[in-house]
Amino acid sequence: MIQVFDDNYFMKQAIAEAEIAMEKDEVPVGAVIVSQQRIIARSHNQTEILKDVTAHAEMIGITSASSYLGAKYLQDCTIYITLEPCVMCAGALRWAQIGKIVYGATDDKAGFTRIGRELLHPKTKLAFGIKHEECSAMMSDFFKKKR
Amino acid sequence: MIQVFDDNYFMKQAIAEAEIAMEKDEVPVGAVIVSQQRIIARSHNQTEILKDVTAHAEMIGITSASSYLGAKYLQDCTIYITLEPCVMCAGALRWAQIGKIVYGATDDKAGFTRIGRELLHPKTKLAFGIKHEECSAMMSDFFKKKR
Repeated sequence: MIQVFDDNYFMKQAIAEAEIAMEKDEVPVGAVIVSQQRIIARSHNQTEILKDVTAHAEMIGITSASSYLGAKYLQDCTIYITLEPCVMCAGALRWAQIGKIVYGATDDKAGFTRIGRELLHPKTKLAFGIKHEECSAMMSDFFKKKR
Repeated sequence: MIQVFDDNYFMKQAIAEAEIAMEKDEVPVGAVIVSQQRIIARSHNQTEILKDVTAHAEMIGITSASSYLGAKYLQDCTIYITLEPCVMCAGALRWAQIGKIVYGATDDKAGFTRIGRELLHPKTKLAFGIKHEECSAMMSDFFKKKR
């Protein structure tokens, strides 16, 4: 059986969110949160429009998914993010006890892996590199234009 | 000259916020953000009522202060918090480039110093222990009641 709703599919949805951010001249990072093969939250970086450093795609996604589920903890959810989460977002994903994190591009400057895997909840699974090139290209294109 | 608006004064205000949280059966953590000796944001932990792990006093405070100032960065601000910030909040305070952090009680379990000072922005000043006993007692009283 062909699995339609796989990691590639959900990362593509996160990329679509990042593209919305890009159109608004925000750093192009997008996320979706998935529960039982359904997207329950879609979000993108909004730090510029909201003038709020906490408005990362992951943070908005967590708030949105928790609101949808009426629950603080997201153990049965997977978050797909176009970019490696920063320390703030890794900390938030730990509090949420997120089931799994899948990210596309790595972030050598601000990514949480600079500090270490221990920032995440011990039960959180981690995967990365899904649509890595596409996610990375979006980021480098954005910052090239900014220069 | 007696300085009325000193660290003790502002920490007392943060404690008043923590007391509001306590009354709502939230983990009693409160914060105020100060710019030029004026409180521009008051906040307390709201994770239970909002069912949102990101609703820590510091996060709400940053969003509120940024909204008040119309600016993402808080270099000229001091945040007073009754409890040592967690990793998520330390990451957020780094993005905000907060000028100074003053906290009361230490948090051996979830505090950012478990990981290290490098989670903060290199220009952020740090002080702690202001009204330490009062802040710690609030936390231990709260968790004693919960047991």
